[in-house]
Amino acid sequence: MPAMTPDQLHAFMAESFPQAAHMGFRIEELDDTRIRLRVPMHDRHLRPGGTVSGPTLMWTVDCAFYLLIMGRIGPVALAVTTNLNINFMRKPEPVDVLAEARLLKLGRTLAVGDVTLFSDGKADPVAHATITYAIPTR
Amino acid sequence: MPAMTPDQLHAFMAESFPQAAHMGFRIEELDDTRIRLRVPMHDRHLRPGGTVSGPTLMWTVDCAFYLLIMGRIGPVALAVTTNLNINFMRKPEPVDVLAEARLLKLGRTLAVGDVTLFSDGKADPVAHATITYAIPTR
Amino acid sequence: MPAMTPDQLHAFMAESFPQAAHMGFRIEELDDTRIRLRVPMHDRHLRPGGTVSGPTLMWTVDCAFYLLIMGRIGPVALAVTTNLNINFMRKPEPVDVLAEARLLKLGRTLAVGDVTLFSDGKADPVAHATITYAIPTR
Amino acid sequence: MPAMTPDQLHAFMAESFPQAAHMGFRIEELDDTRIRLRVPMHDRHLRPGGTVSGPTLMWTVDCAFYLLIMGRIGPVALAVTTNLNINFMRKPEPVDVLAEARLLKLGRTLAVGDVTLFSDGKADPVAHATITYAIPTR
Repeated sequence: MPAMTPDQLHAFMAESFPQAAHMGFRIEELDDTRIRLRVPMHDRHLRPGGTVSGPTLMWTVDCAFYLLIMGRIGPVALAVTTNLNINFMRKPEPVDVLAEARLLKLGRTLAVGDVTLFSDGKADPVAHATITYAIPTR
Repeated sequence: MPAMTPDQLHAFMAESFPQAAHMGFRIEELDDTRIRLRVPMHDRHLRPGGTVSGPTLMWTVDCAFYLLIMGRIGPVALAVTTNLNINFMRKPEPVDVLAEARLLKLGRTLAVGDVTLFSDGKADPVAHATITYAIPTR
Repeated sequence: MPAMTPDQLHAFMAESFPQAAHMGFRIEELDDTRIRLRVPMHDRHLRPGGTVSGPTLMWTVDCAFYLLIMGRIGPVALAVTTNLNINFMRKPEPVDVLAEARLLKLGRTLAVGDVTLFSDGKADPVAHATITYAIPTR
Repeated sequence: MPAMTPDQLHAFMAESFPQAAHMGFRIEELDDTRIRLRVPMHDRHLRPGGTVSGPTLMWTVDCAFYLLIMGRIGPVALAVTTNLNINFMRKPEPVDVLAEARLLKLGRTLAVGDVTLFSDGKADPVAHATITYAIPTR
């Protein structure tokens, strides 16, 4: 059973990370090991040619996994990303980005997961990432 | 529909890569985008402490994804691994290793996928990897 | 001998990628296999606690390596990042970011390199990344 | 000043990891943040076509970085690899492999570095890897 609900997570982010909350993301699904996050398309995320920028995709990976960890163990303000590996596979459409993240390991000091990114309405992923967070000893 | 069946892949490997076939792996499931591979435990894979060695796990990742690509497009002797990223998450048990690989992208020159490794009988993965192969233009 | 000088690269970016040029980066050194890039500190890159944001660091990695490739082979508008792996090692200071990139391989279709990021004035790197670009066949 | 000399490291490996020592590696240079390791060519490392196998290269990366950490902080039997990311860039020649590793961060619980692999006598690297070790709290 998650430690925080999507509503609690949205409220926590709005208070603690207003810059991130400003991206307008919404948690669509959440359980102990999975999250589905929607990041609405916005002109400021776009690159020439009408594609979503690489930094926006990487931010989405990081945000989805951070929310998944917090959903599981509660607010951990000091958790930090230590490794992010991303494969860019297809040009994103100028639409919402959906992130589906899995928690593969929640250890004493490290959390490891992977995140698959989709353009809304498309079956083939635009990118896939693995990510590691260092978690302060609880 | 895959281009090769598990039996055809086993025969191809025995002929073309006898050293790899010597590992005794068996394809348990195969379709267009997924493979499940079993690598039997053998004393020569073990490390002190009774754990499967890192090189054996990395070999398993590479082999599973190579078989998945060949199953999909037929024998491509010149395909080569260009990137492998692996997170080691739990100590493997001294039992068979199971690899579950997904094909995330099959492009004109690159194939990208991920592979999750399990100790037989355990639900939590021992490792997770992403892998890229360069494929000769067909 | 590089195909483009730092001045030519600055002008090319200002024209083709005004959004990127807006970051105000400057090439401090450039030869066939190495580049040193400075990204000035700006409030919009900062996170709470006065540290440079992860997306800004990832953007810096990507930009430095793109400039190094273009410096070597000339403008290649269609080159795209296919893989980026980054290890975040130390909290960045709220100062300029320096990127030192090396070209490890320039192949027919792939370019591979690594990028080490520093906070200006500090000897220990804040992050290290490897990056792969797919290059259109020339 | 390193905590262990090359001779002490060779002796420690021969006693604690006879299987690894059997590879016949030699430390050619060692200081606080760098190591240069030679792994002699042997028939059992070769693949059809006379190239060094991928698992041998990955083993070399792992071994070089483990020796560098131990040289710095002394024998830490329980240090384990948590992440390895490798880019294979050129076909290795059937000759000795040289590994040049750098320690980029030695933290309280994680050590991060990169390793560049060469075929003996060649200037262009055959592979480049980044690697993370988890270190038991000292």
